Amino acid sequence: MAALEARVQMLEDQLAVQRLLNQWGPAVDTGASAAAAALWTEDGVLESEISYLDGPGAVAAMVESEGQQSLIRQGCAHIQAFPLITVEGDRATATGYSRVYLHQEDGSYAVWRVSANRWEFARTGSGWRATNRTNHVIDGGPEARDLLRGGLS
Amino acid sequence: MAALEARVQMLEDQLAVQRLLNQWGPAVDTGASAAAAALWTEDGVLESEISYLDGPGAVAAMVESEGQQSLIRQGCAHIQAFPLITVEGDRATATGYSRVYLHQEDGSYAVWRVSANRWEFARTGSGWRATNRTNHVIDGGPEARDLLRGGLS
Amino acid sequence: MAALEARVQMLEDQLAVQRLLNQWGPAVDTGASAAAAALWTEDGVLESEISYLDGPGAVAAMVESEGQQSLIRQGCAHIQAFPLITVEGDRATATGYSRVYLHQEDGSYAVWRVSANRWEFARTGSGWRATNRTNHVIDGGPEARDLLRGGLS
Repeated sequence: MAALEARVQMLEDQLAVQRLLNQWGPAVDTGASAAAAALWTEDGVLESEISYLDGPGAVAAMVESEGQQSLIRQGCAHIQAFPLITVEGDRATATGYSRVYLHQEDGSYAVWRVSANRWEFARTGSGWRATNRTNHVIDGGPEARDLLRGGLS
Repeated sequence: MAALEARVQMLEDQLAVQRLLNQWGPAVDTGASAAAAALWTEDGVLESEISYLDGPGAVAAMVESEGQQSLIRQGCAHIQAFPLITVEGDRATATGYSRVYLHQEDGSYAVWRVSANRWEFARTGSGWRATNRTNHVIDGGPEARDLLRGGLS
Repeated sequence: MAALEARVQMLEDQLAVQRLLNQWGPAVDTGASAAAAALWTEDGVLESEISYLDGPGAVAAMVESEGQQSLIRQGCAHIQAFPLITVEGDRATATGYSRVYLHQEDGSYAVWRVSANRWEFARTGSGWRATNRTNHVIDGGPEARDLLRGGLS
């Protein structure tokens, strides 16, 4: 019975991490800065080749920034692809792709960015939270490949 | 034991909703009008900025319409992104993105539409069925943002 | 108890198949030929309109080929959409879409290929492995539609 409960817990953890991850796009694409910030632990860090955000306050400020607001006014979709999730105890990782689509004046959409992502998560007293997201555009360089390779078991 | 069974049921419900959702694209992209219609309750409704479909019969007619058949002949892919799913008892919602890719004469693909979606589901005597899908293209206007924001807890 | 355990096993199987599938993109986009090969049974087959690969050795050779290495140097992302998964005993299928995005010299991304996929899997002594992947570009012809329709229950 305890063994079965542990298996159920493992399944629940994987779906909980998926749910957390799937809130990111809707939060940043709608300007929901508090919802975006709430996904992160206090010491959460987001790193990419163009930004470094340190903690929920920095996440909220990014969402409220003129740069992000300008994308929202244009029409943007930050879409995470279905990732490779690994849960180990109170830690988890998600490795996968993300894309940013931008609405164009003629009504079509451009694929603005396609990135490799490594997300890290921790189980906290109030559920799973993101502790780190490192992403890099897929541009033929080694950085994106290193991120994707890190998730392969 | 009953508590564990309820947890397993919750996991099964989430995967059942995912499975239902993942049949939509293959059904509409292959002209499988009966399969597309079968995903919906009798009072199911699909609303977007360009259409209003009321019930399985209207869904089947849309799939068989010259407009949809023309997209199928051109080569279309209606792809739902991995959504944020919430199950509460006999109801569920899925919030997320969808894209329509269209095959071009030169062999490349255009991203024709990127939309925000809110799906609603009900548990019926024959399993989960969709009761509502509201979607709107992401064009910088408030409609798509409202749909995405509605899924954030 | 045995019935509940069987339900948990079914959920685990579905997530295991998802995990296997989600390793394919990161493996082929990073040149991890051994990781890509390890996803397949000895008699695994990959078929598309442009290739036929027979067994893990052929998969590894494809990843190491000049064609694939050239895509990797350019910056490529082979992204599987969240598929329709069906598990029956020691066999499983996944039906869905895949896309290949390619980095362009101006920094944007082209959608190079959008394909229909049918994956087949078997439970082996060392976990789930892929036994077959058949895919075809979505070009308006019947082949891609047949693949997608095969997954509809």
